[in-house]
Amino acid sequence: MNILREIAKDLDSKDKLHKYRNKFILPKDQIYLDGNSLGVLAKGVVDNINHTIKEEWGNNLISSWNKSWIKLPRLISKKIASIIKSYETEVYVGSSTSINLFKLLKSILEANSFIKNITTDNLNFPSDKYICEVIAKDFNIDFNFLDYGNDLIPDIEKLKENILKEKGILVLSHVSFKSSYRYPIEEITKFCKDNNTILIWDLSHSVGAIDIDMRSNGVDYAIGCTYKYLNGGPGSPAFIYVRECELKKLKSPIKGWFSHNKPFEYSNEYIESNTIEKFSNGTPHILSLSTLKTSLDITLEATTEKLSIKSANLFDFFITIYNDDLKKLGFKLLSPLDKNKRGSHISLSHKEAWRISKCLLEPIDSRLMSIIVDFRPKNIIRIALTPLYTTFEDVYIISERIISIINDREYNKKDNTMEGVT
Amino acid sequence: MNILREIAKDLDSKDKLHKYRNKFILPKDQIYLDGNSLGVLAKGVVDNINHTIKEEWGNNLISSWNKSWIKLPRLISKKIASIIKSYETEVYVGSSTSINLFKLLKSILEANSFIKNITTDNLNFPSDKYICEVIAKDFNIDFNFLDYGNDLIPDIEKLKENILKEKGILVLSHVSFKSSYRYPIEEITKFCKDNNTILIWDLSHSVGAIDIDMRSNGVDYAIGCTYKYLNGGPGSPAFIYVRECELKKLKSPIKGWFSHNKPFEYSNEYIESNTIEKFSNGTPHILSLSTLKTSLDITLEATTEKLSIKSANLFDFFITIYNDDLKKLGFKLLSPLDKNKRGSHISLSHKEAWRISKCLLEPIDSRLMSIIVDFRPKNIIRIALTPLYTTFEDVYIISERIISIINDREYNKKDNTMEGVT
Repeated sequence: MNILREIAKDLDSKDKLHKYRNKFILPKDQIYLDGNSLGVLAKGVVDNINHTIKEEWGNNLISSWNKSWIKLPRLISKKIASIIKSYETEVYVGSSTSINLFKLLKSILEANSFIKNITTDNLNFPSDKYICEVIAKDFNIDFNFLDYGNDLIPDIEKLKENILKEKGILVLSHVSFKSSYRYPIEEITKFCKDNNTILIWDLSHSVGAIDIDMRSNGVDYAIGCTYKYLNGGPGSPAFIYVRECELKKLKSPIKGWFSHNKPFEYSNEYIESNTIEKFSNGTPHILSLSTLKTSLDITLEATTEKLSIKSANLFDFFITIYNDDLKKLGFKLLSPLDKNKRGSHISLSHKEAWRISKCLLEPIDSRLMSIIVDFRPKNIIRIALTPLYTTFEDVYIISERIISIINDREYNKKDNTMEGVT
Repeated sequence: MNILREIAKDLDSKDKLHKYRNKFILPKDQIYLDGNSLGVLAKGVVDNINHTIKEEWGNNLISSWNKSWIKLPRLISKKIASIIKSYETEVYVGSSTSINLFKLLKSILEANSFIKNITTDNLNFPSDKYICEVIAKDFNIDFNFLDYGNDLIPDIEKLKENILKEKGILVLSHVSFKSSYRYPIEEITKFCKDNNTILIWDLSHSVGAIDIDMRSNGVDYAIGCTYKYLNGGPGSPAFIYVRECELKKLKSPIKGWFSHNKPFEYSNEYIESNTIEKFSNGTPHILSLSTLKTSLDITLEATTEKLSIKSANLFDFFITIYNDDLKKLGFKLLSPLDKNKRGSHISLSHKEAWRISKCLLEPIDSRLMSIIVDFRPKNIIRIALTPLYTTFEDVYIISERIISIINDREYNKKDNTMEGVT
């Protein structure tokens, strides 16, 4: 393996994105490969949030609403719009993904009374399914759960048959959280349009690591979170994208205070904002939003085109080791080999996945580096290749560790107990 | 006036809550009397949020979900529950007041299909009205807007007639944002119960400054924000209170990810939390929540009983000056004189209210202290008596300044232009 480590180091030295790693505070004595769950802290965020707290809140108090906070959601929306290649007027930021999907579905259904069903599939994140179900019930329309018989790779023909049959709303996760499978966004979007189906993409597991282009792919609707590859921090607000021509047809779904055209006139008459701010709720969560001022700029500077390429290169490096060593140790790659069909994490299954994760986190030999990966029940290890800060050497180190955990049966020294959040 | 200043100083020196002022970072060279719009920064918040960012996010990353973040909403809810004297299982914290009212109304209506109308009055904050309207439309029931002919003091008889007639849902703001009028919570709650009306109190303008007791007043439902007298910072999350016996009847209105009984099992089957967490959305906004860990403890330590008394004492001191001097200068007190019918701010009208606010903020004589009050269109000045940090001397200083602004016609040197947020 030692020659591989040299190759990894060499790849890192030639990597033009390597410098961005230095813009983040990475955990001490750890390799963090869980950026698909929670992105890391950008160095600039610390100063930035202290400015927001000490100066804007502590010293300037209420005047900060006029000076900066009122414009903050728009400022962040613009940056997200630029990352997903949409017009800045097409993105709203605020709330959580659950609430945003709820609002978007409600708004679409109110504007399109002919729609009779909502479909999602078993590759989507379960919480999107819950929202689809509740909205279908609210509007007294059908909910379809498309099950491909496996939750790793969709049956595209079956999906298309469903589209042809249902002609309703379809909600898909662009990259699936379990397998890292990525849908052909252009093909599915076009197929839906050609067949009178409204399609909502959930970009949570792709945005920031995969090059996404709302405009050229003709996407009408999308939602997504900002705390994974966009590094917004725990519970940073989510977003909604609506194509400009569709936006005019939609009404505010909740009529929250900040969706009013002039919220600070305190008028008893609700006059809806005619911009995408019609999706706003009450007062924006300023502190949770303000981290994004800094973190999104790093993604914008690096560009998702280059991040996407690096993600694929990291995977290619991994796959060599997988083919040579991991395969024969009982691991199975669940992620597609084709880079165009994959997100930015690797999913591996192994019958000892949970105990292997524990060994990676807390090696029996305490001199070894702790490695954070993401375990998904029941037997999946997810390794995030976060192109802004993951190195080729990181990929080498985790691969080597996994091999020795199996070869030394280190996992036998861990028990199977679990905690709440994994 | 000088003797009054001495009296004010004497009152401050005897004030047992005076020490709490030292727990906050107050703006430099300013008197801040706008705590009813945005509370000030507690000193402990700075360290606290830096710990959350640098240690919990920056260093511990995903493991912080298990170690602390997953428990944070519950921790904050407990503190709010203690402040409003409810059981800790009766309070949910998260989202904005708009979304929370939406969720609560939706949930109540789904559980009570016999309800045929929602009423609010013209003393309520307009954004509550918008939400009542949208929900009434969604459920195809009537919305009534009860207008007393003035937006300062309600006509309680008219309100009771409406309750007797409608027997639906009533949404009232405990303390009205314009006049500071406070409803007799026990009387109205009992009257609603006796007459088959479901009542939701919006506590946004009272919680933290007024002694509120959910249990002894028999309140079933309430909502409120935390960025005013609870000092949570810009856009800190709002809360929902539901009496335990009612909670069992309600279903999750949105079915957000964190309202699942076991959100981290990623089950495709939605199993609702049987606790008040059924009102949760997606991932909680951790940074915006974490400020409350510190700020609520100050309110809890001071106790709302004592805060309520101090608020009344500050008002009594003001009213002496008002009666002696301000009345004859064209000011009109819009807030009730009876302390049991008042919140913790003073509303004054004056035809030059806007330009007076400007003079207070930026005195023509730059050696004078800047004073922040809150202007509400078209002619109202609101002065917050925030008992945690407002002093009797502050009340003296603003009164003296107002008198001289009028006597010297200083307002003539300001123009009438306005900015967005006031």
